Amino acid sequence: MKSSNRGVELSESPIRSLIPYARAAVAAGKEILHLNIGQPDIRTPKKALQKVLSIPDDVIAYGSSEGMESLRKRVAQYYEKFDIEISYENILVTTGASEAIQFSLFSCFDPGDEIIIPEPFYANYLGYTQMSGIHIVPVSTSFEQEFELPSTEAFYDAISPKTKAIFLCNPSNPTGKLYSKASLERLAKLVKDQNLFLIVDEVYREFCYDESFYSVLNIESIRDNVIVIDSISKVFSSCGARIGYVVTRNDDIIQAMVRYAQLRLCPPHFGQVLAEACYDECDEYLPEVKQEYSERRLYLYERLSQMEGVRTYKPTAAFYNVVVLPVDDAERFCKWMLTDFVYDGHTVMMAPCDGFYIDKSLGKKQVRIAYVLSKDKLAKAMDCLEAGLQAYNTSEHLVEVDAI
Amino acid sequence: MKSSNRGVELSESPIRSLIPYARAAVAAGKEILHLNIGQPDIRTPKKALQKVLSIPDDVIAYGSSEGMESLRKRVAQYYEKFDIEISYENILVTTGASEAIQFSLFSCFDPGDEIIIPEPFYANYLGYTQMSGIHIVPVSTSFEQEFELPSTEAFYDAISPKTKAIFLCNPSNPTGKLYSKASLERLAKLVKDQNLFLIVDEVYREFCYDESFYSVLNIESIRDNVIVIDSISKVFSSCGARIGYVVTRNDDIIQAMVRYAQLRLCPPHFGQVLAEACYDECDEYLPEVKQEYSERRLYLYERLSQMEGVRTYKPTAAFYNVVVLPVDDAERFCKWMLTDFVYDGHTVMMAPCDGFYIDKSLGKKQVRIAYVLSKDKLAKAMDCLEAGLQAYNTSEHLVEVDAI
Repeated sequence: MKSSNRGVELSESPIRSLIPYARAAVAAGKEILHLNIGQPDIRTPKKALQKVLSIPDDVIAYGSSEGMESLRKRVAQYYEKFDIEISYENILVTTGASEAIQFSLFSCFDPGDEIIIPEPFYANYLGYTQMSGIHIVPVSTSFEQEFELPSTEAFYDAISPKTKAIFLCNPSNPTGKLYSKASLERLAKLVKDQNLFLIVDEVYREFCYDESFYSVLNIESIRDNVIVIDSISKVFSSCGARIGYVVTRNDDIIQAMVRYAQLRLCPPHFGQVLAEACYDECDEYLPEVKQEYSERRLYLYERLSQMEGVRTYKPTAAFYNVVVLPVDDAERFCKWMLTDFVYDGHTVMMAPCDGFYIDKSLGKKQVRIAYVLSKDKLAKAMDCLEAGLQAYNTSEHLVEVDAI
Repeated sequence: MKSSNRGVELSESPIRSLIPYARAAVAAGKEILHLNIGQPDIRTPKKALQKVLSIPDDVIAYGSSEGMESLRKRVAQYYEKFDIEISYENILVTTGASEAIQFSLFSCFDPGDEIIIPEPFYANYLGYTQMSGIHIVPVSTSFEQEFELPSTEAFYDAISPKTKAIFLCNPSNPTGKLYSKASLERLAKLVKDQNLFLIVDEVYREFCYDESFYSVLNIESIRDNVIVIDSISKVFSSCGARIGYVVTRNDDIIQAMVRYAQLRLCPPHFGQVLAEACYDECDEYLPEVKQEYSERRLYLYERLSQMEGVRTYKPTAAFYNVVVLPVDDAERFCKWMLTDFVYDGHTVMMAPCDGFYIDKSLGKKQVRIAYVLSKDKLAKAMDCLEAGLQAYNTSEHLVEVDAI
């Protein structure tokens, strides 16, 4: 009894192949400094957590498929901060941004349709497009241009009669790039002109360090084309609560999404209570969190800039950056760090970037680093990475590689 | 900007079309007695809820995609109660049974494959088969035979080269039927012989009133074919927690499911904590709950048996039964109860059964009644239904209908 072909072919996370090595490293007594996943180490807002813990309900019942009305209204109010005027009826609560992506793809696309995504992109987008039977047409962005949004011409070139949407992550995972108002407005013209959906994952919106965030929900001319993905996971360090949102003013899309939402009955109750309480903590909680990430970002930039042969840039948003390493193959190096290297009792785990590209070769020497560790741990991680790079490039490993 | 065809065509819940009428009824001041949905009114185990409320975590982080190991081990231990020996590695925690169904279908079927399901069946199965691009081949069960499992011949007749699985709900939603060990073992022979998956939704396993429950996980000959769907929603009145399970000893299927599980990152954290704590309350909590449902079941049976023209049977499990009403059209009657009828300030909402059939005509005079109300409310609901039936059949409405 074999599984389906699609079940076998579903893409796995870029770090999936490293996990057995990470387990072995832990078993061998190494401490791993995890720079490989977007799991913030910052505390979930304490007062919000206490709200969950005082739930008076005695039946944890099905809620509305659309999400708790009070939460949807609270989110609509929160968006005012970004000058977005939106009714709560245009906001659906989802089980994480993951489900918001799934609803968006199933509601906008039929099997065989195409979606344009700048690469590198968050690897799970690939899994969800596979699950919904649609094809990604990548448009490349480059390290050299600090992952700036591709030109309008590049997007035009990618369009076919099957194209239904352009999908962005802004600020970007994995690059830490914030797209400017001007470049989004340029893209909006194309979207309007070609009658496409513009789906934007804005889950890192709160972490913009140099310029302010501009949401595509603000672009009046494409009101009907825009779908925004959001989540409390990163903003409020609440990944395990599984609460996200999908936001659109397009009635047809809302109606289709509600059908998918009804199919899975409702989003998680406790997480919704947490989410609603989180928004009350914005003013107190978020400035501190943003400051912390920004300091880590600058520290990382400084350390990476000083490493021989390492090429980096100062990311402007989110808590990631993409780094070009002076190695033959970043995935092999990441594996080697787990299997063959230890520095003062620990090693570093990073995400090789090939998994973030359709054209894997583009990411061959790149890793994504998530700065989700405290500064003292980041310092250790950078010491370890620096020593690892030196050791790797002078180790017998290279001889072996050359011999292949 | 229109939604996808599949987004428009996705089946809706059988009660969906009644919801606007229910809202209008409430707005008009009527109290609705809800017999239409499987939302238990029983309290969530109190001690288990208190455990959630004392979560010490300060970062609500991503958990394992497979679910918390401690919870998976606890569920494996719970299954011993049903003489099921299973490793926790064969149990994945899902976001409700809904997600367990989704994972099962995507992992076993490719688009265009067929699945055999006895009808009437839980309406959301239809949505999930549509979402995964597979076709339901229904095998009918009948009120006259108290919805007994179809004969082996009927299943054989439904098999085509595209058939990948048989899907059951045992005990059954909507019929309240418990399938016997003997009939499941007969089916197992066919499953083995034809090399099919046997997917069984066992979420109502704890509510069997006359005979004891027998799980397909006990049938040794089809170890590799069986996939079981489970959930805490009904057993522990925790629908809003969104915690389910998928259980299989088939390694290929587990691997495919883990890929889908990784794609959505992890199941909800708080719900998992609640679930684990619920299993500690089994002995104290479940006997009382089962007793309560059984008493309601017998009361309903008695009342329905006494109503003129109503045909019913004594359901043996779950908290549903299917009732044949002396009306022209059950959906029209259910709507009429909301729009045109009031009895002592209230009315009754039921689920018309046509939505539980592929061949809608089979359910035309049937409704599903969920006994998820306290006995005093059930008494009111039965008084109201009885009066409603009399009024409906003597009202001008019928004249109108005949005139069409």
